[in-house]
Amino acid sequence: MEERAMGYYSKPLKQEKVIRDPVHSHIYIQDQIIMDLINTTEFQRLRRIHQLGTTSQTFPGAEHTRFTHSLGVYEIVRRICDHFQRNYPSKELGDGLWDDSERIVAECAGLLHDIGHGPYSHTFEHIFRTNHEQITQAIITSPDTEVNQVLSKMGPDFPNRVASVINKTYDNQQVVQMISSQCDADRMDYLLRDSYFTGAQYGNFDLDRILQVMRPYADGICFKMSGLHAIEYYIVSRFQMYLQVYFHPISRSMEVILAHLLLRSKELADDFKLNQNFNPTLLMPFLNGTFNPETDLQAYLKLDDGVLNTYFSAWKDYPDSILSDLSHRFIDRKPFKSAKFNNQTEDLIPKLQSLIEAAGFNPEYYTATDNSYNQPYDVYNPASGHQNAQIELMEKDGSLIELSKASLLVRTITGKDVGDSRFFFPKEMLQPENNVELFQQIYDNFQRYIKNDSLINPEEN
Amino acid sequence: MEERAMGYYSKPLKQEKVIRDPVHSHIYIQDQIIMDLINTTEFQRLRRIHQLGTTSQTFPGAEHTRFTHSLGVYEIVRRICDHFQRNYPSKELGDGLWDDSERIVAECAGLLHDIGHGPYSHTFEHIFRTNHEQITQAIITSPDTEVNQVLSKMGPDFPNRVASVINKTYDNQQVVQMISSQCDADRMDYLLRDSYFTGAQYGNFDLDRILQVMRPYADGICFKMSGLHAIEYYIVSRFQMYLQVYFHPISRSMEVILAHLLLRSKELADDFKLNQNFNPTLLMPFLNGTFNPETDLQAYLKLDDGVLNTYFSAWKDYPDSILSDLSHRFIDRKPFKSAKFNNQTEDLIPKLQSLIEAAGFNPEYYTATDNSYNQPYDVYNPASGHQNAQIELMEKDGSLIELSKASLLVRTITGKDVGDSRFFFPKEMLQPENNVELFQQIYDNFQRYIKNDSLINPEEN
Amino acid sequence: MEERAMGYYSKPLKQEKVIRDPVHSHIYIQDQIIMDLINTTEFQRLRRIHQLGTTSQTFPGAEHTRFTHSLGVYEIVRRICDHFQRNYPSKELGDGLWDDSERIVAECAGLLHDIGHGPYSHTFEHIFRTNHEQITQAIITSPDTEVNQVLSKMGPDFPNRVASVINKTYDNQQVVQMISSQCDADRMDYLLRDSYFTGAQYGNFDLDRILQVMRPYADGICFKMSGLHAIEYYIVSRFQMYLQVYFHPISRSMEVILAHLLLRSKELADDFKLNQNFNPTLLMPFLNGTFNPETDLQAYLKLDDGVLNTYFSAWKDYPDSILSDLSHRFIDRKPFKSAKFNNQTEDLIPKLQSLIEAAGFNPEYYTATDNSYNQPYDVYNPASGHQNAQIELMEKDGSLIELSKASLLVRTITGKDVGDSRFFFPKEMLQPENNVELFQQIYDNFQRYIKNDSLINPEEN
Amino acid sequence: MEERAMGYYSKPLKQEKVIRDPVHSHIYIQDQIIMDLINTTEFQRLRRIHQLGTTSQTFPGAEHTRFTHSLGVYEIVRRICDHFQRNYPSKELGDGLWDDSERIVAECAGLLHDIGHGPYSHTFEHIFRTNHEQITQAIITSPDTEVNQVLSKMGPDFPNRVASVINKTYDNQQVVQMISSQCDADRMDYLLRDSYFTGAQYGNFDLDRILQVMRPYADGICFKMSGLHAIEYYIVSRFQMYLQVYFHPISRSMEVILAHLLLRSKELADDFKLNQNFNPTLLMPFLNGTFNPETDLQAYLKLDDGVLNTYFSAWKDYPDSILSDLSHRFIDRKPFKSAKFNNQTEDLIPKLQSLIEAAGFNPEYYTATDNSYNQPYDVYNPASGHQNAQIELMEKDGSLIELSKASLLVRTITGKDVGDSRFFFPKEMLQPENNVELFQQIYDNFQRYIKNDSLINPEEN
Repeated sequence: MEERAMGYYSKPLKQEKVIRDPVHSHIYIQDQIIMDLINTTEFQRLRRIHQLGTTSQTFPGAEHTRFTHSLGVYEIVRRICDHFQRNYPSKELGDGLWDDSERIVAECAGLLHDIGHGPYSHTFEHIFRTNHEQITQAIITSPDTEVNQVLSKMGPDFPNRVASVINKTYDNQQVVQMISSQCDADRMDYLLRDSYFTGAQYGNFDLDRILQVMRPYADGICFKMSGLHAIEYYIVSRFQMYLQVYFHPISRSMEVILAHLLLRSKELADDFKLNQNFNPTLLMPFLNGTFNPETDLQAYLKLDDGVLNTYFSAWKDYPDSILSDLSHRFIDRKPFKSAKFNNQTEDLIPKLQSLIEAAGFNPEYYTATDNSYNQPYDVYNPASGHQNAQIELMEKDGSLIELSKASLLVRTITGKDVGDSRFFFPKEMLQPENNVELFQQIYDNFQRYIKNDSLINPEEN
Repeated sequence: MEERAMGYYSKPLKQEKVIRDPVHSHIYIQDQIIMDLINTTEFQRLRRIHQLGTTSQTFPGAEHTRFTHSLGVYEIVRRICDHFQRNYPSKELGDGLWDDSERIVAECAGLLHDIGHGPYSHTFEHIFRTNHEQITQAIITSPDTEVNQVLSKMGPDFPNRVASVINKTYDNQQVVQMISSQCDADRMDYLLRDSYFTGAQYGNFDLDRILQVMRPYADGICFKMSGLHAIEYYIVSRFQMYLQVYFHPISRSMEVILAHLLLRSKELADDFKLNQNFNPTLLMPFLNGTFNPETDLQAYLKLDDGVLNTYFSAWKDYPDSILSDLSHRFIDRKPFKSAKFNNQTEDLIPKLQSLIEAAGFNPEYYTATDNSYNQPYDVYNPASGHQNAQIELMEKDGSLIELSKASLLVRTITGKDVGDSRFFFPKEMLQPENNVELFQQIYDNFQRYIKNDSLINPEEN
Repeated sequence: MEERAMGYYSKPLKQEKVIRDPVHSHIYIQDQIIMDLINTTEFQRLRRIHQLGTTSQTFPGAEHTRFTHSLGVYEIVRRICDHFQRNYPSKELGDGLWDDSERIVAECAGLLHDIGHGPYSHTFEHIFRTNHEQITQAIITSPDTEVNQVLSKMGPDFPNRVASVINKTYDNQQVVQMISSQCDADRMDYLLRDSYFTGAQYGNFDLDRILQVMRPYADGICFKMSGLHAIEYYIVSRFQMYLQVYFHPISRSMEVILAHLLLRSKELADDFKLNQNFNPTLLMPFLNGTFNPETDLQAYLKLDDGVLNTYFSAWKDYPDSILSDLSHRFIDRKPFKSAKFNNQTEDLIPKLQSLIEAAGFNPEYYTATDNSYNQPYDVYNPASGHQNAQIELMEKDGSLIELSKASLLVRTITGKDVGDSRFFFPKEMLQPENNVELFQQIYDNFQRYIKNDSLINPEEN
Repeated sequence: MEERAMGYYSKPLKQEKVIRDPVHSHIYIQDQIIMDLINTTEFQRLRRIHQLGTTSQTFPGAEHTRFTHSLGVYEIVRRICDHFQRNYPSKELGDGLWDDSERIVAECAGLLHDIGHGPYSHTFEHIFRTNHEQITQAIITSPDTEVNQVLSKMGPDFPNRVASVINKTYDNQQVVQMISSQCDADRMDYLLRDSYFTGAQYGNFDLDRILQVMRPYADGICFKMSGLHAIEYYIVSRFQMYLQVYFHPISRSMEVILAHLLLRSKELADDFKLNQNFNPTLLMPFLNGTFNPETDLQAYLKLDDGVLNTYFSAWKDYPDSILSDLSHRFIDRKPFKSAKFNNQTEDLIPKLQSLIEAAGFNPEYYTATDNSYNQPYDVYNPASGHQNAQIELMEKDGSLIELSKASLLVRTITGKDVGDSRFFFPKEMLQPENNVELFQQIYDNFQRYIKNDSLINPEEN
């Protein structure tokens, strides 16, 4: 590697440093560049962005941030490299084994893979048309960031190499798959970490065992057949975490409120300037649509969860009743209620919206539908272009078998969409705060459409 | 109890509700009043205030908030009441056993004991002369808060009763000691919780065992002699958490920076008004000294960690170089370095401050001393007025022995101050960022005074 | 209950006693009868019988016994009763809720459900035609046992009632299903316990959550719909434990050796008498087929794992070469190797047996086939007579849905046999200990039939 | 190293093998010799010898064996070697750093350090004058054992080198201290393991942290000053495990019964021959005093816990009433009661013994005194000859400070004997099984001498 010649690569720390982490016990830092990246302002900013957004409204322990997750991904990458170098060191070019000179680029990519995330990423991106993957690339390759300046000490091409690992165009597929595949360091860390902090035990698969059965091969990373059940369990863990944690209706309800709140603020962008106390200075480029990720990286990097919450808190007193009420519901945790619907009951929604409107709520801001579906495991489909997505198992004689062919359990859930579709509406429709007799009939009517957490057609039941 | 007659107390939830918590597995909510208190805006605000302030700068997992801690204290109180009612139910007035009609006041006090905390409490109070205990009382007793309105449904006197448990003037000492004593629900939850989230294992004592040996008696709460070692271990755990986590030099260094930053902002209060982008609107009553806890409770309740961090982030670009630099150091985690000193070496500090000044740093903002000392266990001393502070063990025949009389280990550390005194200074004094030859001699001179993490007199060594 | 009148039931312990348990933290003993049962000689005997037989040969931590498992089942039953009594107390006869006067019979049945197990139960029963369920009934109802004498203090009919809970003929289905159903205290304890002691994390489902969603109804026990995923996860955990732990080929291999060893000893029964040093006195009634569970209960109760191992150790020096060699393989852990086979490859086995015989091993003792299959979840099938086997979920409106109808994951594995069929043979066939050139050709030939842990037909590959 | 030339040392396994272990997650086996040692008959025998003897009578989960402990010690040694090689590799002879060619001897010594233990070691040795350390040396160096034969493949001198590490005469003090010092792999594994299996949390110190701060130096192994509190916590953990687990009165009571039982069997040695059913064949060399460790190693190796228990079970029916009763008490867990005594109350013991005799118990077999004391930490005392016993901390400048000089907590307990002296007697003296009026006066008199778990002089109280 040319970097080696530049003297930076040869700067392992004299003695490794450790960061205490409740999930992995310790994060071991062995190279100066890793320490320097952690100390950049862009990376430190991840301390102020929660990993799970509104999920802590349902699982209050889930207050962990993208900072610790990023450290965790780095640590898992580091352990994979150790395991590969100990058990599968490359002896000659092209033997399909592990070339440890790839370690540093893999570790940097693991550490930085989420560097472009902003506050409440999912909803924010949806409303403001930003893209955290694009911004990740920009942070790594733009000469204005501290991250880029640290990476560049390894050589002028090094930032691009790290960025290409993250966007999966790097030529060494072993490195790419460590960071991005169906069983990668990213997913493994977030399952363990989200499980630890939520207290939901479902994501608690056996990391040590998975690392033990993981191995490099010519086309990337596969797993020894003896690890079949450990992988199977990991897939089911992920599936469970989606159903139990990531798709929890209360968290989705809080996201619905957040989305409507941001949407309303966008509509009020011009008004805010009139009242300095409510003016969301740092959000303005996004509200008025002038944000350009190429030129305004710093504007994006100034945002974090606390900044947004600070605006929301202030807006509780804003004169627009929709903005102030949604801000109150978001900040003080007054989630919407929801009910499942399906193809048969979807048609009931307009009727329900009209009842909600009759009860005094603007349906545009006070109702929503949300589909949460995910495929717990997905096999390569040429049409979908998900190359290398599938998990391969290696038999003792070196032949490969795709996971769903070897596992009944995985086969069942392969390619299946799991999750549900929900209709969200104000809690008041079910639990009127004051028995306003005026609306009682509307409430009663509305409630006939909800049974066992689902929409039903009262005429048919 | 008169509350019972009012119909509220008799509103146990039809079925208990649970909140997932990684420390206690679940928090069990059995009464409507507890659910209602959790849903108040004042209680929800605790979600935005970290339990350990700057400690997450050292132990990055420590991102938990006062919200989950408060739930945890409630849960431990609930379990103590269950245990007391099962094993030591009062049969007649004055028998020194447990009267379960005290349960609801105990549970409310456990839930609300920290309701008055604000952002970065310790430092904030020090700089702005606020007092979270006083504010806790105000939140509970002021008719303007949602907390007070919920409590009042139990009876007009109920808020005062809850407040008096928290300020230790309540007449039932069993209830008071559940919340405030050397082995209370508050300390037990925070040790377990801080241990869980930091990943430092030291606070991980045996809660189930302690609850099992805890018992009521005429003067409060004591522990069966068979639980001696469990209590001993708890005391040592607390001692270790102080030394290893709460007194960690890096966290204290970040607090030093925070204190200087807040102090500087106070000095600049009038200037901020000139530049709306930097104006810390919500902090203003504190910066200009007009805050009055009696009348401005709402101003206090608008603050949280995110609000302060939002101002600090903005101030990184403020024209005052001290404010902007300290903001940068705080937000981007550039801690001061520190060295221990003692009575002998304290005199060296002015000399060091002058070297620091010569290197271009204003010592008022760029140096500090900090003493972190705590007594892991403290026996009742009539002079100190800490009545009931001591832990009592009950022999099989009912006689009581104070803990330090029964335990060699505890006796050793009883009343001892543990911790250290440190002198804080810019990292640049030890690790110049650019080899400014101009200052090299100053740096070299300075470094002669530091050895093995302590100040030394280079002339004597 | 008539027992109450007898004064025994009204003997709750003055203060509950606790036994430390690593799985449940503590076992809480609240009644004198439970303490008395634990202290019987029949129950203490369970300390000398491992829970998992030969599994500790694969997972060396799995050295736990039926003693701690039985305590654990009792503890889970106790917690279920607490939860039912707190949330679903019966108000009138036939309301389908929980009648807490059933608690003591449920707790006794939970504690005693495995009291009839002997050493290496599965294999022992297979070879000697004993039946631990029959013996459990005998121990509880025979007037000669200490267990019966303790139970009888509750009333003359009490032992029969406890026995009828265990054999599922008791009239209260809530009590029966606590002990015996697809999600009962027995299964829940052994999954958690086997997971804890083996270190295999797969059985680590969320007990607290399951208990929380469990509820009594008219026909037994069901689960709230909100607990769907917790139940799903429990089913998958069980499935994984079967595949990963209970069906592990090495453990099964050791059981195969044990079975052959016991079989051989049966054939040698008459010879043993000639040499007192090798005579398995306590096994004799089983070897010569005179054991009668009705009259010889004490003979059965004298056996435990250590007694059998003591004979096996001695037999390592016995003049019969098959007995001594199998004893050596069992005691010194020299497992057979194995390969999977299926319908297509089953026909190869005779050919392989002849090769094994040619290499000097008697195939009757040195080869075996073993099918390990289990259904992770089984729906009620009128033909199979498994009444009440299925798991029911209760919707908010009280309607019931069978688990596999609500869960895609469970539906997939419902009624499916999982596991494999294996052919076992001496390790020497793959790894000759001494390169006996004489047999080299036989070994080479044999090895052509094994590929990727499975039998293959070398002619077709 | 000369071994290298012999080709064995250069036989690392192609791929490391793992053994699942609940304490360390996995044991990693990387060399053929380690695998071969584990497979020896002498090492497999450790599966049948419990780590904690009678402790499982108090903490029923403590059913783990010396087999898993020995694997655990090996694993910790392996991790220390990894850490030393990564951070402190020796560059030239005598630089005080780690020479990784010492790894294999260290790992073998760790694995084999307890190979000489027999059943119920402590009591067995006391009664039969055997010595497990002497037998460990014999097993390793005697050419008749499989262990010796495996070790000898490394070179003719290799067994002696491994043996010398264990008896502390090996020249490399780093290797010796890994296995035997106040913070060695042996102690670290047993604290963690005993804590895990008992469920007592007290031994659960922070292994990862200790390994991280451990370092080699010229005279052995020391710890970085930054690890002071981790070491302190480890010392306190050990102290707590002694008080709470190892010295538990019930376990000691069962040992007292065991000792008396073995003593009685010794006295009856000649009688046993008359009744073959009760004849303890394998114990005979010990009962009649003919055992010679030099020549009878195989006789010793035939014993295990199950063998002894098998004899005890049989003896429950032996015609000698003392032997049969003590066997019953041991096998069926009927512990003696006990009371603490001190210098002042020791004189009461003869009086109590005469009361016990009057109640029908032979005091020689039915009473005992036992002192359990241990020093949690011991500083080097030239007189005591415990060279290198003390724990050294290394400052940043390389200077060393002995632990108790740096830690208040450790200083307090240094050299202190902790534990208690107890007088053991039959439970019947406190809880007569049948109210034999004949003895009531004796019981009443006896009970006057016991108060709060201690002997008292009733005349003085």
